[in-house]
Amino acid sequence: MNYKIVQPTDLAYFKSIAGCSTYTDEEQLQRCAADQTEDLHYMPEVVLQPTDTEGVSAILKYCNEQHIPVTPRGAGTGLSGGALPVRGGVVLDMRRFDKILNVDTRNFQVTTQPGVITQVLQEHVREYKLFYPPDPASKGSCFIGGNVSENSGGPRAVKYGVVKDYVLNLEVVMPNGDVMWTGANVLKNATGYNLTQLVVGSEGTLCVITKIVLRLIPAVTENMLLLVPFRSAAEACAAVNAIFLKGYTPSALEFMERDALEWSMRYVASTGISLPDDITAHLLIEVDGNNKEQLYKDAEAIAEIVQGYDIDEILFADTHEQKEMLWTLRRKVGEAVKSNSIYKEEDTVVPRAELPELLAIIKSIGAEYGFKSVCYGHAGDGNLHVNIVKADMSDDDWNNKLPLGIRKLFTEVVRMGGTISGEHGIGLVQKDYMDIAFSKTQLTLMKQIKEVFDPNGILNPGKIFV
Amino acid sequence: MNYKIVQPTDLAYFKSIAGCSTYTDEEQLQRCAADQTEDLHYMPEVVLQPTDTEGVSAILKYCNEQHIPVTPRGAGTGLSGGALPVRGGVVLDMRRFDKILNVDTRNFQVTTQPGVITQVLQEHVREYKLFYPPDPASKGSCFIGGNVSENSGGPRAVKYGVVKDYVLNLEVVMPNGDVMWTGANVLKNATGYNLTQLVVGSEGTLCVITKIVLRLIPAVTENMLLLVPFRSAAEACAAVNAIFLKGYTPSALEFMERDALEWSMRYVASTGISLPDDITAHLLIEVDGNNKEQLYKDAEAIAEIVQGYDIDEILFADTHEQKEMLWTLRRKVGEAVKSNSIYKEEDTVVPRAELPELLAIIKSIGAEYGFKSVCYGHAGDGNLHVNIVKADMSDDDWNNKLPLGIRKLFTEVVRMGGTISGEHGIGLVQKDYMDIAFSKTQLTLMKQIKEVFDPNGILNPGKIFV
Repeated sequence: MNYKIVQPTDLAYFKSIAGCSTYTDEEQLQRCAADQTEDLHYMPEVVLQPTDTEGVSAILKYCNEQHIPVTPRGAGTGLSGGALPVRGGVVLDMRRFDKILNVDTRNFQVTTQPGVITQVLQEHVREYKLFYPPDPASKGSCFIGGNVSENSGGPRAVKYGVVKDYVLNLEVVMPNGDVMWTGANVLKNATGYNLTQLVVGSEGTLCVITKIVLRLIPAVTENMLLLVPFRSAAEACAAVNAIFLKGYTPSALEFMERDALEWSMRYVASTGISLPDDITAHLLIEVDGNNKEQLYKDAEAIAEIVQGYDIDEILFADTHEQKEMLWTLRRKVGEAVKSNSIYKEEDTVVPRAELPELLAIIKSIGAEYGFKSVCYGHAGDGNLHVNIVKADMSDDDWNNKLPLGIRKLFTEVVRMGGTISGEHGIGLVQKDYMDIAFSKTQLTLMKQIKEVFDPNGILNPGKIFV
Repeated sequence: MNYKIVQPTDLAYFKSIAGCSTYTDEEQLQRCAADQTEDLHYMPEVVLQPTDTEGVSAILKYCNEQHIPVTPRGAGTGLSGGALPVRGGVVLDMRRFDKILNVDTRNFQVTTQPGVITQVLQEHVREYKLFYPPDPASKGSCFIGGNVSENSGGPRAVKYGVVKDYVLNLEVVMPNGDVMWTGANVLKNATGYNLTQLVVGSEGTLCVITKIVLRLIPAVTENMLLLVPFRSAAEACAAVNAIFLKGYTPSALEFMERDALEWSMRYVASTGISLPDDITAHLLIEVDGNNKEQLYKDAEAIAEIVQGYDIDEILFADTHEQKEMLWTLRRKVGEAVKSNSIYKEEDTVVPRAELPELLAIIKSIGAEYGFKSVCYGHAGDGNLHVNIVKADMSDDDWNNKLPLGIRKLFTEVVRMGGTISGEHGIGLVQKDYMDIAFSKTQLTLMKQIKEVFDPNGILNPGKIFV
């Protein structure tokens, strides 16, 4: 595609849109040139902050006619480069869509704008004794619109599902400026094609989300958290499936290699957790429900299951402070690794029972291709984040040899029935590997769907597809 | 579209496909000329029964090149005319795809061919202590492939979700004969567009499903069933939401107007249920779980909630026989109505709390347009089946006035945030109303997606779209 460079006449048009702010200053352009993906950096030509659907529609219609690329941006917490304006042009910054429009307590639904911080939304509906479960590690800063665009997960997906399982209906703006709803505010729908689920996870490449209707569930009142130290990482992975096979579904079941926890402990500079030398991995296991007595029984039963493996003493966290401390450690692993070295994060996902094999393969490929990895993630879903740290790898190996190792890893993941992204999306940094997950038939079909929505290719160009 | 009439040379080609049976005899053509939708009847020119994916691929590739219409058929239990060969041509009868290929007990997944009867699949996985919840009323005869194509629901959707919530991955054949998988066998997936959910509910118009990977959950061991007779149907609808607002999620919450239960009782010619003259509606409420003590508590709490309304004595069914009898009565309502009169069945769905308003509107529109309706369905999801009986309505009113009444009803449903089909699909009989649920933008988008998959329009022509 050939795109137009933004001209003064274009800026004049953008400035004429009611309620829309237009920024071309260095600070705003720099802010929108990066997200949380590695150290990548792509400058946009202009940052636009509309305040309503009409504004988004006017921007898209104009850019579609003028062939100006538009990259929608949420909070910029993405890990696959989805918000990077790789072709310059407009960054469509949705931060002023920050209102929760309606909590429907009769029907357990919330209608929100996309620029609301996920945790703010969660806390708001909790005041009505309702629960929106998906909780990505960045929940304190990410936007719900970005979560929908990436089909985000988080620790509680293992029991409650991912974002797609909560999205009922979306108001979206098409590249030509048309505004539409994708579905209806109902729990069951057999009316035409499922446009809603086509937009969820489409990473801002099909249309721009301006309103979101989410289904909620009744709030859960109690939970308990266990930190289980394993002397063998392989056994920790194996224990994950043993818990499910015994009939328990924890509300979180997280795996952390020793380095992940150790680096995070150093990064947050606190805790009080002891980490004996022979511990190589931990499981962080949460159970939740409304009956405290039942929870204690479940926690004890799970403790008994993991005691069948070579473990050290289990930490039962039952105060709010202890739980928060453990969750902070878990959530900060990504930042901790980032602060430690240049790194790449892969987001592998396999059928849950294949985790031990996946971990062994990662380490074996690492040995073959000369990279060190720190693995952690949502083991209960088979979703393992593989943080590959550069450390003392040469630039040449990092740039040329490592991609071959990643290719080999993804090939193995797909062989196991898995795929290359569980919750981060493809965005910019995984698109070169799409041919591993999909055949030409599948890729052609996806590209044709993209063309139906966005014939001029103005929306988030350079993402998902090579 | 102009379609070719099947010629002797075409039949010769079909007969040459390995493992595929070709039928042109009256009996087979008649069998495939109808489904369970009203008394509609459309003759195909030939019925093909392939036995493998290669056979389906060969049929589609040939028909695509020759412009011969192909209507995929499951068990023919559909209620929207999805399996009717309205343009003649080939009926692609999937009944020989009747094998459950693999139960993965480690990952709680089943891989099945589409021609397996849903109940057979449910009973098979139950042997492994696993549970596939979606249970349409026709579960004893419908095929799982048809369920996926229509995104079917059933009573247990209220707690466990509909078919789309269990489909992980599909092997499909495209109209040009290409075979592909739509996703991966994982619980989380952020890799490209969600082709799986685009195919679920697409009613055989995009591609033909040849393998299905379903997620399963651990089997639930206990349940209890309550039949609650109400003196006011409006109060029965209101009680539905009261149960949820108190924090209970029954595993089924079914509503039946008096006529629905009475006609079904007469149809199955048994029971032992008394039906006092002043009872106008029933709720059938199931709770399930693994803890019998907890279930009794839940059932008692729900009984207490409904006792706040004007009800007669609650029937607590706790033997297997009693439960089966009540479920049989519920499942046979559709057939009972059908045996009683010419009828049309609408499949309205609204946000749950709007049910009382929906019921009032149905009755008021019925009075205005001169039709009698028998309403029943999955009240817990806001999904109400409206059976409009012809009784002594004139043919002229039935054909000309009634559609205006249905149009008015659907307009009200959409105004309430609902839509025109919750679980039956659009198929043939609802396509004239799609403009009520969708704008031109939405309909154009769906049609363009159809063209991407099926540029020659050979797959299930005349469905979903006008």
